[in-house]
Amino acid sequence: MTPAALSSRIRVVLVHSRNPMNIGAAARAMSNFGFENLRVVNPYSVAFREARSAVGASQILKRAEEYTKLPDAIADCELVVGTTAAKDRELLQPLVLLEQAKPLMERQSGGIALLFGSERRGLSNADLSYCHWLLRIPTAEGQPSMNLGQAVAVCLYALSRPPVSLSEPEQKPSATARELDLISDFLAEALYEHGYMNAEAKSSTTEKVRRLVRRLSLSTADAQLLLGMLRQLTRQ
Amino acid sequence: MTPAALSSRIRVVLVHSRNPMNIGAAARAMSNFGFENLRVVNPYSVAFREARSAVGASQILKRAEEYTKLPDAIADCELVVGTTAAKDRELLQPLVLLEQAKPLMERQSGGIALLFGSERRGLSNADLSYCHWLLRIPTAEGQPSMNLGQAVAVCLYALSRPPVSLSEPEQKPSATARELDLISDFLAEALYEHGYMNAEAKSSTTEKVRRLVRRLSLSTADAQLLLGMLRQLTRQ
Repeated sequence: MTPAALSSRIRVVLVHSRNPMNIGAAARAMSNFGFENLRVVNPYSVAFREARSAVGASQILKRAEEYTKLPDAIADCELVVGTTAAKDRELLQPLVLLEQAKPLMERQSGGIALLFGSERRGLSNADLSYCHWLLRIPTAEGQPSMNLGQAVAVCLYALSRPPVSLSEPEQKPSATARELDLISDFLAEALYEHGYMNAEAKSSTTEKVRRLVRRLSLSTADAQLLLGMLRQLTRQ
Repeated sequence: MTPAALSSRIRVVLVHSRNPMNIGAAARAMSNFGFENLRVVNPYSVAFREARSAVGASQILKRAEEYTKLPDAIADCELVVGTTAAKDRELLQPLVLLEQAKPLMERQSGGIALLFGSERRGLSNADLSYCHWLLRIPTAEGQPSMNLGQAVAVCLYALSRPPVSLSEPEQKPSATARELDLISDFLAEALYEHGYMNAEAKSSTTEKVRRLVRRLSLSTADAQLLLGMLRQLTRQ
């Protein structure tokens, strides 16, 4: 069975967007390139609600789903991809150029979250720790930071163009972000209780665990198997 | 002699733009993708001059050249390309999809004008008559009309990229079979001791663990990380 088109599987997730004009611009680009599912995490709420209820707001904007926390916004997704200018920070996940992203996304058959950070700061390290890999729009040196609406437009253009075919072996359904979170959270907590990390390092080590779990390319079945094993190992 | 890069030969020409924010957005996209020469034809002048002289205006915006007539703005160009949503009118020039435009442009060695029309109406038939060919950003049916700043960003992204290659994201060295065996054996033994399997099933369950560990696509670094975690979890 051929999986559904990327455009129907990608959820565009705007994290901490401040400017409702940018949310509107993202919605317009989605409609230009045939994408439908827009999610916003903790937007500047008053302005966002006004924009959404305005006369002439697009269907995409009206139907945008609002979340207060990132994990909830991506819980049903098998693949979580963060966009980054990759300038200031040491990146701990694989970095993929935009033109190489589509075939990688097409290896999955489930929901895909494509995350865009705030206008000013982009995605935080905590946001990035939920990502399987990161996507970079190849911009000029010295000017890496794009306007949010333009970044969304460029990404969706590139992802909407005909695929470069890569035949791959059939894959089992991948674990969802929620299933991966179950493992990450359980493992991090168990490691903490077993003295693997101290209280000060708990947050950074938890992010490290989350990234490790995402690199394991777990299927849903394997995620359950692994969680069952970890529970048994830590039973007193 | 190799002609100069497209980015230094392309003049982005905004024709009859009404909204100075869109001119600013076009300038920002140019700086993101390494283009420098911006020309505006008959903009809404007061607003444009204000935008250009504002504190914080980019160098590209400050240096933008202003013309009253299109023929003057493109007089030094060997190739003139108009962008169009190609919806309402009968087109009299060849229409080229964005992803096919770059090789055509690279056949020329001189200046290239890339024309964008006004927010509301796009390029007029008179404007189009100056074009050698027309470029269409492949948008979804029913929503062809893009925001000006986003259209500029998408075009310049596509024109700045090298031809698509199928290189994969950089992979870390994969764990060796011996490293995987260390994990499998440790995990199977620990599971046995913690009552996850009984003596009769030990052999088949150990094989199951071995297959699981092989499906995790572990790098050497991750294999060591995971083994360290497992050891800590099972320490009495």
